[in-house]
Amino acid sequence: MTAPKRFYEDFAIGDIRETGRYRIDEEEALAFARAYDPQSFHLDAEAAKTSLFKKLVISGWLTAAISMRLLVDVRAGEDSPLIGTGIDELRWTFPVVPGDELHVRSEVIEKAPWPGGKPRGIIRFRNQTINQDDVVVMTYIANGIAPMRG
Amino acid sequence: MTAPKRFYEDFAIGDIRETGRYRIDEEEALAFARAYDPQSFHLDAEAAKTSLFKKLVISGWLTAAISMRLLVDVRAGEDSPLIGTGIDELRWTFPVVPGDELHVRSEVIEKAPWPGGKPRGIIRFRNQTINQDDVVVMTYIANGIAPMRG
Repeated sequence: MTAPKRFYEDFAIGDIRETGRYRIDEEEALAFARAYDPQSFHLDAEAAKTSLFKKLVISGWLTAAISMRLLVDVRAGEDSPLIGTGIDELRWTFPVVPGDELHVRSEVIEKAPWPGGKPRGIIRFRNQTINQDDVVVMTYIANGIAPMRG
Repeated sequence: MTAPKRFYEDFAIGDIRETGRYRIDEEEALAFARAYDPQSFHLDAEAAKTSLFKKLVISGWLTAAISMRLLVDVRAGEDSPLIGTGIDELRWTFPVVPGDELHVRSEVIEKAPWPGGKPRGIIRFRNQTINQDDVVVMTYIANGIAPMRG
């Protein structure tokens, strides 16, 4: 295995990354809903008309999963994966519908050494998932652990 | 459409629900990882040995998606879906591996009318996702909106 390329020390508060884009098609939205979120407003366009959304929307957990995929892809080739430990203040702020194209904007907002002296640190990111009209559809703070250089 | 069966007023602080169980097989874990979280410690048992986990673990987002599925199933037949608005304090507290069988314990911890007088209220749940050995693998607070009775 090659050495890690991106350590705790390499993340600076204020660093911003923009991911690529991911278009959600209806087939994927329905398959995810059938497996993990089989509520009528995620599965059935007709039934969704009487829901709070008035139309079929994709599961918020699919938006979260796609956001993860976009972030993994933008880090591809860095042999130092951040290990996610948790999520804070996740909000689904705007409906996502099949056909939408999402990307993520991720900013380092905090970092601190891991308690106890292990050569690791905690990094916090503020992530925004944004649609093709520049509307923020989901926001969250992601907490991760990264190894230290020495 | 039939009338909603479970309104804001029907949720009481302290109410606890236990879901059914969901066994994660390796095929599902790998398919999810390939689609949404293609990191080596989710995809490749050999590569995972050198990761922080020392073994292949499932994506935390799959644990979250399965928790949603378990909660949807336990509410099946209630024609008043809670609309999820966000998640707080999500923590992945223990590794989940293929073959694990998960269930969710969900407790109502807060409720409040929606600001502005619309006939809706906000309900907060503390959810724990638990494995077959009674180890809590994920905890989070889920925020939802439910319609009021009148």
